[in-house]
Amino acid sequence: MKVRKLVIVGGVAGGASAAAKARRCSEEVEIIMYEKGPDISYANCGLPYYLSGVIKKREDLLITSAEFFRRRFQVDARTGREVIQIDRNSKKVIVKNLNTGQMEEESYDRLILAPGSHPIVPPVPGMDLPFVFYLKTLEDTDRIFSYLQNKNPRRAVVIGGGLIGIEAVENLALKGLETTVVELAPQLLTFLDWEMAERVRWHMHQKGINLCLSQGLQSVHEQNGQGLVRTDKGGEIPTDLVLVAIGVRPNVDLALNADLELGVTGGIKVNEFMQTSDPDIFAAGDCIETMNVVTGKPVLTPMGSAANKEGRAAGANALGRRIAVQGFTGTVIVKVFDLTVAKTGLSEREAIAEGYSPLALYVQPGHHAGYYPGSKPVNIKTVTERESGRLLGAQVIGEEGVDKRVDVFATAIYHQMRLEDLLQLDLAYAPPYSAARDPVIIAGAVGQNYYQGDWDPISPHELKAKMDAGESFVLVDVRTRLELQERGPLPGALHIPIDLLRRQLQKLDPEKETILYCAQGFRSYFGNRILAMRGFKRVKTLSGGMDNWMYEGESAAAQATD
Amino acid sequence: MKVRKLVIVGGVAGGASAAAKARRCSEEVEIIMYEKGPDISYANCGLPYYLSGVIKKREDLLITSAEFFRRRFQVDARTGREVIQIDRNSKKVIVKNLNTGQMEEESYDRLILAPGSHPIVPPVPGMDLPFVFYLKTLEDTDRIFSYLQNKNPRRAVVIGGGLIGIEAVENLALKGLETTVVELAPQLLTFLDWEMAERVRWHMHQKGINLCLSQGLQSVHEQNGQGLVRTDKGGEIPTDLVLVAIGVRPNVDLALNADLELGVTGGIKVNEFMQTSDPDIFAAGDCIETMNVVTGKPVLTPMGSAANKEGRAAGANALGRRIAVQGFTGTVIVKVFDLTVAKTGLSEREAIAEGYSPLALYVQPGHHAGYYPGSKPVNIKTVTERESGRLLGAQVIGEEGVDKRVDVFATAIYHQMRLEDLLQLDLAYAPPYSAARDPVIIAGAVGQNYYQGDWDPISPHELKAKMDAGESFVLVDVRTRLELQERGPLPGALHIPIDLLRRQLQKLDPEKETILYCAQGFRSYFGNRILAMRGFKRVKTLSGGMDNWMYEGESAAAQATD
Repeated sequence: MKVRKLVIVGGVAGGASAAAKARRCSEEVEIIMYEKGPDISYANCGLPYYLSGVIKKREDLLITSAEFFRRRFQVDARTGREVIQIDRNSKKVIVKNLNTGQMEEESYDRLILAPGSHPIVPPVPGMDLPFVFYLKTLEDTDRIFSYLQNKNPRRAVVIGGGLIGIEAVENLALKGLETTVVELAPQLLTFLDWEMAERVRWHMHQKGINLCLSQGLQSVHEQNGQGLVRTDKGGEIPTDLVLVAIGVRPNVDLALNADLELGVTGGIKVNEFMQTSDPDIFAAGDCIETMNVVTGKPVLTPMGSAANKEGRAAGANALGRRIAVQGFTGTVIVKVFDLTVAKTGLSEREAIAEGYSPLALYVQPGHHAGYYPGSKPVNIKTVTERESGRLLGAQVIGEEGVDKRVDVFATAIYHQMRLEDLLQLDLAYAPPYSAARDPVIIAGAVGQNYYQGDWDPISPHELKAKMDAGESFVLVDVRTRLELQERGPLPGALHIPIDLLRRQLQKLDPEKETILYCAQGFRSYFGNRILAMRGFKRVKTLSGGMDNWMYEGESAAAQATD
Repeated sequence: MKVRKLVIVGGVAGGASAAAKARRCSEEVEIIMYEKGPDISYANCGLPYYLSGVIKKREDLLITSAEFFRRRFQVDARTGREVIQIDRNSKKVIVKNLNTGQMEEESYDRLILAPGSHPIVPPVPGMDLPFVFYLKTLEDTDRIFSYLQNKNPRRAVVIGGGLIGIEAVENLALKGLETTVVELAPQLLTFLDWEMAERVRWHMHQKGINLCLSQGLQSVHEQNGQGLVRTDKGGEIPTDLVLVAIGVRPNVDLALNADLELGVTGGIKVNEFMQTSDPDIFAAGDCIETMNVVTGKPVLTPMGSAANKEGRAAGANALGRRIAVQGFTGTVIVKVFDLTVAKTGLSEREAIAEGYSPLALYVQPGHHAGYYPGSKPVNIKTVTERESGRLLGAQVIGEEGVDKRVDVFATAIYHQMRLEDLLQLDLAYAPPYSAARDPVIIAGAVGQNYYQGDWDPISPHELKAKMDAGESFVLVDVRTRLELQERGPLPGALHIPIDLLRRQLQKLDPEKETILYCAQGFRSYFGNRILAMRGFKRVKTLSGGMDNWMYEGESAAAQATD
């Protein structure tokens, strides 16, 4: 069948990519792109940064325009029009002109759905109050911006400590608002494991953000002319502005009403060519269900980078090409004031939930050579399928060089690399950029040491569980006396500096379980080697060391972050 | 055989790594490490940065000490001693005490050779003059540093425009010296292709560095109390200081005298376990021959990052382990003032020399979202095996985000990825770190467009050759009038702005070869699509556009760099 007419629903990331690509695949096809809002292809991901003024001009957010799409791509971009129904039998869409209220019809040979997603609205009272906002569209942002300009709010509460919530928090705080986060989970950024998220929590605390974790939103009120957020733990937070960012859901009403198949995640089901259960209908962007390439299971990936790839593939494939989008590793990154926080693949918690028996290891090398000025620690947690050694995920946090490492991990995970095979990578080294042993290489070496049987790591939560259960073991702090003065030992630890370990062996019992730790885990690993080679049968090392021990409350996180 | 005694020749990167790893593999083995110089394990790669004061203190270069190796690792680190002979039959080494001149003997069960490399000394007069220096060891650096302090030189000539030469140039210039580079090749950094190296040349020129390319060193003189460098092109460069950095050669005298097998590159031949032709002798670091994982051919890899991996493997394997170092992708990176210049795999020139038929493509996206402040272009050249689509190499130059992209390419090349499969990578995206389409993703998309037959790229040197040969073709500039005013057209180009192309088709002849270009290649690619789909049979696009056209001398490089 010759495709004469392509209709696209949605004109932002997925839709606009599809339209431009489709035109590059055919000069003849008629392309009509419907966008509900007034603008096409704007910079969604830049919206939080516009609130603070980091992005200075609104026009910077407008990547392109309907006029440009008409001129360059001969795409009939129709804004202010919502496609409200698909008639698959007669192959047409029913469209509502949002300006006039009138209905229109348009036929199609092929249809691409890219209607995006919508923010989840919590089912609690007060969500319609005038100082309650979302941050999803340019119009949302205009509303907040105008409120910031006109009402000069002093305080903000952000509901949700996920990616968008945290970006909003940073930018509202940069704007000068006293900002509070309310998060239902006991941690921020739930894609991270708890102890990694603790670093983020502490950093935000240092930046003066109020954090209400483990608290659900109960209601929002207006009292005596000021806003009040109530949480399910009895918290009452006065505020001038509430921003709700608890996640998004795919826009699937159109697809559902047209009886297109949805996936288990609630997104529109597509094959790797972005084709829905109707071979003449394709879909792309936040509305679709994607595949996680680590687990092979369906997931939602509401990311601009995903939407662009999917839209490009949908635009081509709707015109007969075969461009595959295999899936996503689950890579995320977020700037949190001075920190960069990133993850790819699975967290330890997610790996366990998926039925893996994960090995979690931690390293904290400098982001570049220590002797070159400005080296900052990069905190890395790798999650590996213990038996096979296959890397499942990595979490990376630090001030510098985080984005680089997570991209290398994402590439390695895509290739199903084993943790220890990271050692084989030839990563770029010069002192301003890396160390002779790059942090990723060190993560690989630490893994290889494990798989060679050179040490037996214990993670902080395993050690904490042992402590809490009152198990009997010997805990040895192998740091220097000076370090011990700066940050005291873990409860019950015996102090034997690493360089005295050989001479003070008589203080230890080769038959007893012995757990060593130092600041970061490298010296205790060496201690582990010494003891194991001298006949100690049950030696373990605290992976990541004291820097990774978050159980002493804020002082621990503070000292670990120093 | 139980290994009771391990002797290591060399105590810097390879040797020190080997010693520390060996101790972690055995508490019992006696380890003796010989180092010719006074210090072990210093920061070779930091030496240039100490000259300028970027690295402030000499002690920062001393990563560890002989005393530390004794205390922590029970390694008998013997400095100021040179191993001058190996007696393989009786398994002993002959050692010269450089302080006393006395000879000593030491037996070994296993031996690790890590004597490093030495700078190549050009066979020309004047190399022994007191103001001629090398930059290989800490002692070399001390000599230059003391000369800088005491003689207060104003001018420097650096012989060699390779990695070390360029690092030296930057740091001597930062120190305030008027600096000149003399390079035999017609370009700097010969691991790059010429047009990429032009960006470096221009940047160095902007920074006030004098560049003498295509000039060999003929001699160095002292005349009337000042230095003079003469080149084989008749150049005479007065100077106060000469730094020679034309490369290094592996130190193989010991190995050669002991009849150990050398490789074709002149390095000591080892298997992937770092074992030489004598199973009791291992080798690591600059002295060995390694494998290039792209070509599968032997190469020298005199890099600190390589030496660390090899030393670690040698130390373990000498004690019976089996740790492999498969080889290297050939990744290099260098800071050149505000630029970062990096490469992994093969350049186009190298690929041709290796017998490949390469496809060279260029992209120049921003290092992060254009709407987020501070976005800088990343210039990427990918080199791909044309038929299979396998990525062979990537060159990356820019001010920001270069190290990240080259590491992703290095990881991709290690996995023998096809260029277009880069599109499948799930790279971290948030506006401060990347764009919705990361530069690596764009490189993949551009490759996929090629393999889908959507465009026919022509590289700058192919176009130049056509021009020089006086071939008949139509050259079309599809930029805007404003751009054309800012940087004029290529010779003979017809101007048809992209958005007028469809309407002005009559100006072109579908039967004639038609070559399109714009600033960077994206609009001309779209023009290529338009013409091809409208019946033009021979359409080509200049990959990388005007920004990649370096044939107009400095003005071109200047404008391309702006």
